[in-house]
Amino acid sequence: MLLEQINRPEDLKRLSLTELETLAGEIRQFLIEKLSVTGGHLSSNLGVVELTIALHTLFHSPYDKLLFDVGHQAYVHKILTGRKDKFDTLRKYKGLCGFIKRSESEHDVWEAGHSSTSLSAAMGMAMARDLKGEHNKVVAIIGDGAITGGMALEAMNHIGHEKKNIMVILNDNEMSIAPNVGAIHNYLSKIRSDRHYLKAKEEVEHLLKKIPAIGGTLAKTAEKLKDSLKYFVLNGVWFEELGFTYIGPVDGHNLPVLLDTLKQAEKVNGPVLVHVVTTKGKGYTPAEQDSHSWHGPGPYKIESGQVLKSVGPPMYTEVFGNTLIELAEKDSRIVAVTPAMPGGSGLLKFAKHFPDRMIDVGIAEQHAATLCAGLASEGLKPVFAVYSTFLQRAYDQVVHDICRPKLNVTFAIDRAGFVGPDGETHQGVYDISFMRTLPNMVLMMPKDEKELRNMMQTALEYEEGPIAYRYPRSSGTGSSLDETPTAIPIGTWETLREGDYAAVLAAGPMVQVAEDAAEQLAKEGIHLRVVNARFIKPLDEAYLLQLASESIPIITMEEGCIQGGFGSAVMEFYAGKGIVGLHVHVMGIPDYFVEHGSVKEQREEVGLTALSLMAEVKKLVPRKRQRA
Amino acid sequence: MLLEQINRPEDLKRLSLTELETLAGEIRQFLIEKLSVTGGHLSSNLGVVELTIALHTLFHSPYDKLLFDVGHQAYVHKILTGRKDKFDTLRKYKGLCGFIKRSESEHDVWEAGHSSTSLSAAMGMAMARDLKGEHNKVVAIIGDGAITGGMALEAMNHIGHEKKNIMVILNDNEMSIAPNVGAIHNYLSKIRSDRHYLKAKEEVEHLLKKIPAIGGTLAKTAEKLKDSLKYFVLNGVWFEELGFTYIGPVDGHNLPVLLDTLKQAEKVNGPVLVHVVTTKGKGYTPAEQDSHSWHGPGPYKIESGQVLKSVGPPMYTEVFGNTLIELAEKDSRIVAVTPAMPGGSGLLKFAKHFPDRMIDVGIAEQHAATLCAGLASEGLKPVFAVYSTFLQRAYDQVVHDICRPKLNVTFAIDRAGFVGPDGETHQGVYDISFMRTLPNMVLMMPKDEKELRNMMQTALEYEEGPIAYRYPRSSGTGSSLDETPTAIPIGTWETLREGDYAAVLAAGPMVQVAEDAAEQLAKEGIHLRVVNARFIKPLDEAYLLQLASESIPIITMEEGCIQGGFGSAVMEFYAGKGIVGLHVHVMGIPDYFVEHGSVKEQREEVGLTALSLMAEVKKLVPRKRQRA
Repeated sequence: MLLEQINRPEDLKRLSLTELETLAGEIRQFLIEKLSVTGGHLSSNLGVVELTIALHTLFHSPYDKLLFDVGHQAYVHKILTGRKDKFDTLRKYKGLCGFIKRSESEHDVWEAGHSSTSLSAAMGMAMARDLKGEHNKVVAIIGDGAITGGMALEAMNHIGHEKKNIMVILNDNEMSIAPNVGAIHNYLSKIRSDRHYLKAKEEVEHLLKKIPAIGGTLAKTAEKLKDSLKYFVLNGVWFEELGFTYIGPVDGHNLPVLLDTLKQAEKVNGPVLVHVVTTKGKGYTPAEQDSHSWHGPGPYKIESGQVLKSVGPPMYTEVFGNTLIELAEKDSRIVAVTPAMPGGSGLLKFAKHFPDRMIDVGIAEQHAATLCAGLASEGLKPVFAVYSTFLQRAYDQVVHDICRPKLNVTFAIDRAGFVGPDGETHQGVYDISFMRTLPNMVLMMPKDEKELRNMMQTALEYEEGPIAYRYPRSSGTGSSLDETPTAIPIGTWETLREGDYAAVLAAGPMVQVAEDAAEQLAKEGIHLRVVNARFIKPLDEAYLLQLASESIPIITMEEGCIQGGFGSAVMEFYAGKGIVGLHVHVMGIPDYFVEHGSVKEQREEVGLTALSLMAEVKKLVPRKRQRA
Repeated sequence: MLLEQINRPEDLKRLSLTELETLAGEIRQFLIEKLSVTGGHLSSNLGVVELTIALHTLFHSPYDKLLFDVGHQAYVHKILTGRKDKFDTLRKYKGLCGFIKRSESEHDVWEAGHSSTSLSAAMGMAMARDLKGEHNKVVAIIGDGAITGGMALEAMNHIGHEKKNIMVILNDNEMSIAPNVGAIHNYLSKIRSDRHYLKAKEEVEHLLKKIPAIGGTLAKTAEKLKDSLKYFVLNGVWFEELGFTYIGPVDGHNLPVLLDTLKQAEKVNGPVLVHVVTTKGKGYTPAEQDSHSWHGPGPYKIESGQVLKSVGPPMYTEVFGNTLIELAEKDSRIVAVTPAMPGGSGLLKFAKHFPDRMIDVGIAEQHAATLCAGLASEGLKPVFAVYSTFLQRAYDQVVHDICRPKLNVTFAIDRAGFVGPDGETHQGVYDISFMRTLPNMVLMMPKDEKELRNMMQTALEYEEGPIAYRYPRSSGTGSSLDETPTAIPIGTWETLREGDYAAVLAAGPMVQVAEDAAEQLAKEGIHLRVVNARFIKPLDEAYLLQLASESIPIITMEEGCIQGGFGSAVMEFYAGKGIVGLHVHVMGIPDYFVEHGSVKEQREEVGLTALSLMAEVKKLVPRKRQRA
C-alpha cells in the first residue's frame, strides 16, 4: 500500500505520476471502507481525490495556504496530512472533526462549516502576505454551489478589483447538496457543455497582441474587437470581466491534466480561477448515481450501497414536510422557501406536490429571507425552512426586512439545539438569543412532533408579523400525528405535571428531560412541577406572575446558550415587574463552543440531562426549608 | 408653480414633456431649499429627479411596485406621492421619515435603510404576482454601490435563473457614499466610457437571426460566433450572462430618452436591467463638486454651499480615526477595514497616512468580516470599523469565522445606541445582545473619548481573540486627548462616585446620565453609587460579588435593547452563582423599534434620562426601609 507511506504532503512529491494515480485509488477505497462504519461526507470527498493529491503535490502546505470552502470535502486533505489513522473516530466525540480545524493540524489554515467563506479569508491571507512581503501561494477550493453565496460574490468583486495573487479552484460538481439553481449555475453548464477543455490562452493572447495598435477614434473599437475575439475563443468571460484569469474547464479526475493546469495557473499574475469539473461520489457507483442521498450518509453496507437506518418515530423534519403539504392543500397562500436544502429540510415531497410554490434559491440565506419579506408584503404566507445555524447568515434581514416592517413570514428553524456529529460550526444554539431579542417576533418550540403540527397551524393563522418554530435534529417522541392540527393561543404555556417543590420551565426536548427527572424525584417524594414553555416569546406572563405569587423556586431549561436565552427572558420579565427575591436557576449551554459528538454526549457535557436537573433540584432543599 | 398641482402620480400623466422638464427644475429647487433647513440626503435625491419623474409618469404606482433600494433617494418619490407639504418635518421626531416607510403611503411598497435588499424583495413580489395571476410591473431602483452587496448578487443570480418579469434600474452615479470599489464597478466604468448609448439591440438580434442555422458539429461554434458578435456590438454581456436583458447606458438626466428607454424596457419579457447614468448632486454646484461631503449634510447656506457645523468637542468617530493613526504608526500589524464608509467611519486621514493598510471593500459587510479573519489568521491586527446597524449583516461571520476560531479581530462599532434622524433602520441598539452572547467575545463601551483611546490600546494589546468597542454617534464629552493611551485590565469596572443608597452600573453615555442624576439626588441627601461598566463582557465579577455582599440595590443602564442586553448579563451572572434576592432593575430600550428624531427625544421616549433614573431610585425607598 502506497498510502501507508504517506504521512505528510512532502511524501507525495517523491511519487511518480503512476504512483499518484495508484494512490488515488487507494484513498478512494480507504474512504469507502472507513465511512461505511462512521458515516460522513462520502460523495464530496470521493469527488476531490485527484484534485487534493494534485494540490498537495504541487504546493507546499502549510507555507502555501490551502483553504477548503466549507471543509466537508477535506477528508483527503486530512489523509495526506498525517491524520489517516484517526478516521475511525471521524465526527465522534473527541475524535477527528468532520471539517477543517485549525487546532488539528498546521495544514488546516482555514476552518469553516458554513459555505462561501474561503474567498474572503483567502483575500485576507493574500493581503497579509503582501503587507509582510512574503511570497506564499494562497489557494481557495470552492464548490459551484458555494461560489454563488453572496459573500463569495462580494469577495470575487474585491479580489478582481485588487488584482491580488490568489488562485480559486472552482470545484464544479453541478451540485451543492441539492442540484444547483441560479443563473451562474446555468452559465457554468454552458461552459461545461462546450468541452473546449484547456484552450491555449497564451496563444490567443499572443495572437491578439499582433493586431497593431490603432490610435485615434478607432482605438476603442479595436480594443473591443479584441475583447470580442477573446470571447469567441475563450471560455469564462463572465469571470474575466470580474478581473479573474479563467482557465478551464478541466477534468478533475485526470491527474496529469490537473497537474499541468495547476502549473499553468500558478504562473498567472493576479487572480486566477481554475474551473475543475468533478463527479460527486466518483468511484463508488451507489454514490455516483444518487449523490443527493449520499451527501452525508450514515453507516452503509459497501456491497449493496444500503444505508443503515434506525427505526423509530419520524424525524421532526419529516413531520414538518408532511404537515406543510397538509396545510398548503388548504391554504394557497403558503409558499416554501429553502436555501439549497430541499432534502435536508424535508421539502422534497412538498416540491412534488407544489412545484410552483417551492422556491429553492441556492446557497443564499440573505436573499431567501428578504424574498420571504417580498412574498409576505403581497399577502402570501412564506415559510422559510432553514437550519438554525444558517439562519445566522440572515440575521440582518430578519431584523431589518421582516421584524421591523412586521411582515408575516414564518420561520421553520430546523436543527435547533445540538446537532451531534457536525459539531460546533453547525450547533443551533444561538437562535433563541438572536431571535427573541428582536421586536415583533414570536418564537415557539414544541415538546413533541404533535405539538410541532399545532405550532405550524398557529403560525398559519397568525397575521400580526413574523413567527418562528424551532425543532431539533432528531426523531420525535412518537406522539400521535392523526389529529388535525389546531392553533395554540399565543403566549400560553401548559403544566404537564403538578408539583410544589420547584417548577421547571422547559423548552422543546428539555420537556421530556424534565419529565424524566420529575418521575425519578417523585419516587423520593420530591414533586417537581413540569411546565412546557412552548412560547419562548412572548412569555406566558400570567403564568409567571402566578409562580411569583407562590414563591416557588424556578428552574429554566433550554438547549440554547444561556447568554440572552430563555432563562434570561424570564429574569428580564421579573425585573421589569419589579419582582425581586425569586429563586431562578438557568440551565442551558454555557459560554463556549461545544464540539462534535453525539447529541447525548453534548448534553451530558453541558449538564442538560435529567440527572443534572435532579441534582439542581436537590440543591434547593436547604433554601426551601429556610423559607418554610 | 407646476409642483403645486402635483399631489399624486396620476397628476404627472397630464403633463407634457416640456412641463415634466420644468417640474424637474422646480423639484430640484424645492429640495435644495427644504434641505438647507432640515439637512438630509441631498445629493442622491438631486441625482434621481428625472428618473423618478419618468418612473411615476410611465408606471401606475401603487399597482405597479416601485422599490427604492435603501430608500434615502426617495425624496422625489415622496414629493410626487402627496407628501411635499411635510418636508419641513423631514427626519424630525414624529415627522416625515428619511427613508421609505410603508405606514406613510400606499406608494411605499418596500421600506429599507440598509442597502441591497430591493432585488430580493422585488423577486418576492414578482413571484407573488405570478402565483396570484396578476400583471403588475415590479421595478427595483438600485445604486451601483448597492448592487454589489452580496444579497443583491444572490438575488440577481436567482432572478436571472427564474426569468421573472422584473425591471432593475441600475442607478449608476459612480458612488455609493464613498467612491465605489470592486471589479463590477470597473466593469460599469468600462461600459460608461464606451458611450454607445442605447444601441439598437433588436436590430442586432435581428441581424444575428439572419445567420442561417448550421447543423452538425459546427452548430455550437456558430452559436458561439453569434454570442461573440453580440458581445462586440452590445454592452452588458456580464448581465446578459446572468440572465438579464441589458439596456444602456442611458443619460439619467435626459427625460425624453429616459422615458423612451423605460418604454422599451417595459416590453422585454423576463428580467431586464436598465443602466441609467446619473450625477449625484445634479443641479446644485457645491453638491456636484463634492458629492462625498454632500451625501447627507446637515443644514447649509444655499448661496455659499457652506454646511453649518456645531462647535464643541470632537465626534467619537474623529477621535477613533485619529487615534488609529497614532497606534498604527507604532504597530505595523494594524490594518483598517471598512465596508464603503471610509468617511463616515473617520478613516479618510488614515487612508492618506497608510494607503496600503486601508481596505475599503465596498458595501460588503460579510466579506469585510471574514477578510478580517483571514488577516488575523496571518498575524495582523485588523480593525473592522463598522456601524452597529451594519454589523448585523456580518453576524454569522462574527460567530462562525471570528469568535469560533478565536481570531484577533478588533471591532470598532460606531453609531452604537440611538442614531437620531436616520431612525429605526439605523439604530445601533442590538449589538450588545448579539455580540455579548457569543463565546470568546470581549465587548467594551467608553464613558468618554479619552477612554475610547484607552480601549483602542486595550484591543491592540489583547491577543486572546475578538474584542470590540462600541461608541455613540455623537461628540465626546470634551475629555483630554493628550495622554498616550493605556490599556485597561480586561473585565474591570471603575467606581466614579461612592454611594450606599443604590448602585448604577452604566455603560457608555449612560455614565454621564447617571452622574447627572447622582448630582441631583445628592442634593436631596440620596447618595447614588455610579459605576462605569466599561466592560459589557466579561463582567467585573469581583465587583458584582462585592455589590451582592452589600445587598445594595442595583440599577443597570444601557443604550441598547433590554432583551438579552447588559442588564440580563448581570442577572445571568447572579443566577449562575446562585445568588438570589438581590434587587436588579434594568434600564434600556424596550421591545419595539424606536423611530427617527433627535437622540435626546429618543432617549426621553424610552426613559434613558437622568430624570427617569432619579424616579427609579426614589421608587427604591420603601424597599430600602424594609430591609433596614
